[in-house]
Amino acid sequence: MTSPVPAVVLLSGGLDSCVTAAWALSQGRAVHGISFDYGQRHRAELAAAARVAAALGLASHRVVRVDLAAIGGSSLVTGAPVPKDRSDAEIGRGVPSTYVPARNTVFLSLALALAETLGAAEIWIGANALDSSGYPDCRDPYLRAFEAMANLATAAAAEGGTRYRIVAPLVAMTKAEIARRGAELGAPMAATHSCYDPAGPDALACGRCDSCILRRRGFVQSGVADPTRYAAEPPR
Amino acid sequence: MTSPVPAVVLLSGGLDSCVTAAWALSQGRAVHGISFDYGQRHRAELAAAARVAAALGLASHRVVRVDLAAIGGSSLVTGAPVPKDRSDAEIGRGVPSTYVPARNTVFLSLALALAETLGAAEIWIGANALDSSGYPDCRDPYLRAFEAMANLATAAAAEGGTRYRIVAPLVAMTKAEIARRGAELGAPMAATHSCYDPAGPDALACGRCDSCILRRRGFVQSGVADPTRYAAEPPR
Repeated sequence: MTSPVPAVVLLSGGLDSCVTAAWALSQGRAVHGISFDYGQRHRAELAAAARVAAALGLASHRVVRVDLAAIGGSSLVTGAPVPKDRSDAEIGRGVPSTYVPARNTVFLSLALALAETLGAAEIWIGANALDSSGYPDCRDPYLRAFEAMANLATAAAAEGGTRYRIVAPLVAMTKAEIARRGAELGAPMAATHSCYDPAGPDALACGRCDSCILRRRGFVQSGVADPTRYAAEPPR
Repeated sequence: MTSPVPAVVLLSGGLDSCVTAAWALSQGRAVHGISFDYGQRHRAELAAAARVAAALGLASHRVVRVDLAAIGGSSLVTGAPVPKDRSDAEIGRGVPSTYVPARNTVFLSLALALAETLGAAEIWIGANALDSSGYPDCRDPYLRAFEAMANLATAAAAEGGTRYRIVAPLVAMTKAEIARRGAELGAPMAATHSCYDPAGPDALACGRCDSCILRRRGFVQSGVADPTRYAAEPPR
């Protein structure tokens, strides 16, 4: 019996990274989850990441602090309001205020540091170019450029012969396809949290930010039951 | 009169980044310094970075916390001993224990986030492929790969037409050439701190780690007076 291939998986606490982690496990990977405490307003996602890691029985899970609030530039780390009740046309048009400058680059860099430390060559990320609210760092050409850079960045690549791979199995899927794939894999989707602006003592999903709108519609279109409790009805 | 071009400069508190910041200023840049509190054992370098920023009169300077100690993998962030009294052959051979996995990638990613937030297109870094103790992320092909990735990573590049440049003016220089260039530029080299393992109440440079050995020899070869106070004589 061969030992499982180690892989680092970015775990945000949201739907996409939950399905990605379950996917990596289904491929026989020993999954090491990494989450980030970056001053995000929606800190409920860190509790969700821990629930997902426990439900999946990951090999390890750690939360790394990185102070993106000291850099600013996003309504997710400042006090600025999160956009609500946006139409499809609005969500599809340009980069919204919830964009965090270079966030996936910062997160993938820290995941690369962990991968090198653990001797893992694979970094799995739930990046998704469709239904992703217009973020440039969720697209495949970006991910391939990061991979090329990673293979020049590290001692493991430069001297050890490691070839890093950025694995993004959801990159071309719709939210509905992701929900269906999650159901097939038995991913613990009820443990996840996607809302940018949870409210109330139970940290219910607001139902009105871009992330809630895309998630709710994805479940409706997938035919998979949505385990999320929303604070508000969908906008008409 | 045109307004100065904004630039982000990585400021470690060491000699190379001090000369790099002075170089950027000499080119008319409005320099925004960024330093990192990453759990390094040689925290005296953060005080040095603040001294350098003040001496140069930078447009801004900030310290961003990122918890690389939670990832481990380097004697600079764990309790492992730092190598001392190594010969040239030993320093030139392979990647030492002071290597921090993917450190420059993490630092450049955070600098990129700051550049995007400030509307700067240039990131200056004192990376140096010679006399750099064998770190793979100090070489030019790596820096060009990071630049290519950055130009796919950000909203400013994807939608705003910004072309990011990673500027590494020291990459092909020897330590002696860097010291001479610093003297020509009037860089505040006396404010800098390079030692990996400072000791005593005055945080004197140890004189024996790779960084001290390379720095001391560079000054000797340059003919520029070395402002550093070392705790130990050079090894014979």
